Amino acid sequence: MKTRVAIIGSGPAGLLLGHLLRAEGIDCVVLERQTRDYVESRIRAGVLETVTTDLLHRLGIDQRLNAEGMVEDGFNLASDDQVVRIDIKALTGRHVTVYGQTEVTRDLIEAAPARGLDIVFEAKDVEIHGIDGDAPFVTYTKDGESLRVDAQFIAGCDGFHGPSRKAIGDGAEFERAYPFGWLGILADVPPCHPELIYANTVDGFALASMRSPTRSRYYIQVPLTEDIRNWPEERLWDELDRRFAPLADRPVVRGPALEMSIAPLRSYVFETMRRGRLFLAGDAAHIVPPTGAKGLNLAASDVAYLADALIAQVKRDDEAALLGYQARALARIWKAERFSWTLTKLMHRFPDDGPFEHRMQVAELDYVAGSRAMQTAIAENYVGLPL
Amino acid sequence: MKTRVAIIGSGPAGLLLGHLLRAEGIDCVVLERQTRDYVESRIRAGVLETVTTDLLHRLGIDQRLNAEGMVEDGFNLASDDQVVRIDIKALTGRHVTVYGQTEVTRDLIEAAPARGLDIVFEAKDVEIHGIDGDAPFVTYTKDGESLRVDAQFIAGCDGFHGPSRKAIGDGAEFERAYPFGWLGILADVPPCHPELIYANTVDGFALASMRSPTRSRYYIQVPLTEDIRNWPEERLWDELDRRFAPLADRPVVRGPALEMSIAPLRSYVFETMRRGRLFLAGDAAHIVPPTGAKGLNLAASDVAYLADALIAQVKRDDEAALLGYQARALARIWKAERFSWTLTKLMHRFPDDGPFEHRMQVAELDYVAGSRAMQTAIAENYVGLPL
Repeated sequence: MKTRVAIIGSGPAGLLLGHLLRAEGIDCVVLERQTRDYVESRIRAGVLETVTTDLLHRLGIDQRLNAEGMVEDGFNLASDDQVVRIDIKALTGRHVTVYGQTEVTRDLIEAAPARGLDIVFEAKDVEIHGIDGDAPFVTYTKDGESLRVDAQFIAGCDGFHGPSRKAIGDGAEFERAYPFGWLGILADVPPCHPELIYANTVDGFALASMRSPTRSRYYIQVPLTEDIRNWPEERLWDELDRRFAPLADRPVVRGPALEMSIAPLRSYVFETMRRGRLFLAGDAAHIVPPTGAKGLNLAASDVAYLADALIAQVKRDDEAALLGYQARALARIWKAERFSWTLTKLMHRFPDDGPFEHRMQVAELDYVAGSRAMQTAIAENYVGLPL
Repeated sequence: MKTRVAIIGSGPAGLLLGHLLRAEGIDCVVLERQTRDYVESRIRAGVLETVTTDLLHRLGIDQRLNAEGMVEDGFNLASDDQVVRIDIKALTGRHVTVYGQTEVTRDLIEAAPARGLDIVFEAKDVEIHGIDGDAPFVTYTKDGESLRVDAQFIAGCDGFHGPSRKAIGDGAEFERAYPFGWLGILADVPPCHPELIYANTVDGFALASMRSPTRSRYYIQVPLTEDIRNWPEERLWDELDRRFAPLADRPVVRGPALEMSIAPLRSYVFETMRRGRLFLAGDAAHIVPPTGAKGLNLAASDVAYLADALIAQVKRDDEAALLGYQARALARIWKAERFSWTLTKLMHRFPDDGPFEHRMQVAELDYVAGSRAMQTAIAENYVGLPL
């Protein structure tokens, strides 16, 4: 098969890129290792910046988003003693939208055939070749058959564990691991509060979030060594109830877990986002801790930059934007990494922190509570810095 | 001797408190361990918030401040790559004033006799007694003679090493030491820039500051183990020249050191600022790292609160303000500790930090450069949060 852009990975990054290119009539194909069912049922993020929803509106893949997305005008930072509401609408004139990454993925996959976006599921053993020359190609196997896609450009949208970053080889790599994880539960119960609550309690971080008015997503901070078998659902609900009862509008309603897991937290940036004809976007190049919900949105902004650059190259033979892609993407990535790191540090109990460091967290929240400037700074990051 | 308030320490905290009480006709006496000459020649801070200058204006001890103080409408945060000016006047409508702590101290001592403020210099072996009862007193020796001051209240304004905090005994104590110190030089040469420059360079933190249009104050970050004998003046001037030449308006002009020393950096709060009839104010209760120039200003705000409370008690027999002093003071102290700690972390190279942490510093400065909200947050802290 020959195409203009071979896209590796059918997460939101790869699918958005594919649609943006197809909207300009540019040929591309998406190669995905997993089955469609698997991809459509992956539970991931759920808070979309306007940068992300604007892309979906621009593509016109927004009927369900418009109908079901929950516009959120604020969110909350809480301690044991106080809840500080960040009124993002009043402070920035903008908002975020709660709409699950799972739903975004479904909508993008659903819209693909009509727009001529070819997605090859179960493309195994993907290998990237020839990126340093002018005829790169991707090989893979499907149903036991060896296949090959020749392309002008390859977009690595295959996440942290995919082959794209490895194909770049040595690069400028930055990493910070955190000494805790998030134990999360997803359940079809109404959320305990109309807006997200990030809480730094005496027992550690907790987050009350949602995917819809009838689907809740909760997290608590646990040690990295924690075993999920120690957490029967009822134990987690008891813990959530204890932490959110004093903070939330409504009780924590319990229901059977649709998903329950422990995820580690990591900050990671691989600055070498381009090598020859291969470009990285999204988790392939960077990971943020989930605090602040920047991961999916950062993938969307990478892709917005990359689509612009590829379109300029293909349509106008203008390579400047491709040459500038890495620097442009990194400027926003590092700021989002900064925000995610800062919010993670503010809202978690770190095992190595002493009483002074905890007082700094309390003082910061007290300061935020009284400072419109600092609330605005938090809000403008939460809602997403401009492209 | 009998008085209403015995004040221990003739730094800015003790002297300001004495003058504020005398302005209401309240008897007090200041006991100072050192000679007047020593006190008047101590080199300390030099950037005054309006909270501090307002107190001096209110007291009318401001002739020299008005004539010689340098109004500063902004300051600068720099890296090797960029200088970000924080326009505090445009962002907050306020300013800071460069006027040496040494000058403030001289003015307050000079004004004391005419206002009936008694300062006993060379009061040695100060001991505090009876603070848990209603007849506290202070004993000391002067010129070999044992003396005693009976008072209704005692104000501990005697700095980090004075006897007042020790007299309180066990208390809630919070501390953070930093793994570096500041090597400073004071010289009668014009500053290299009209406003302060805090710089986080590849070689570490450096600060270009001043005490007047003809007196410069420079600092660089050095390891805690550094020996000042390794730093002949010329070596330090070479280093300053190298760091500030790319950032400043004018060359670094060299001159003989009036003072040169290495100071460690520390964050410290002793929350138990009251025990019975004894009240702590200023460095006796808290230390900030000098980044952001909060130390003297925090002493001034403590004293503003304490003077209000003592006046309410003495003039109107209203004890509520004295009961609230500690909480009121701590709310501002912790926010200033937070700002000093944050600015210290942003602007220094920490030996344990890796490449990721350094990128976080760079990203923060990049973010500040583009965010009016974040610039405002920094400016409102720098100029001083409201009383």
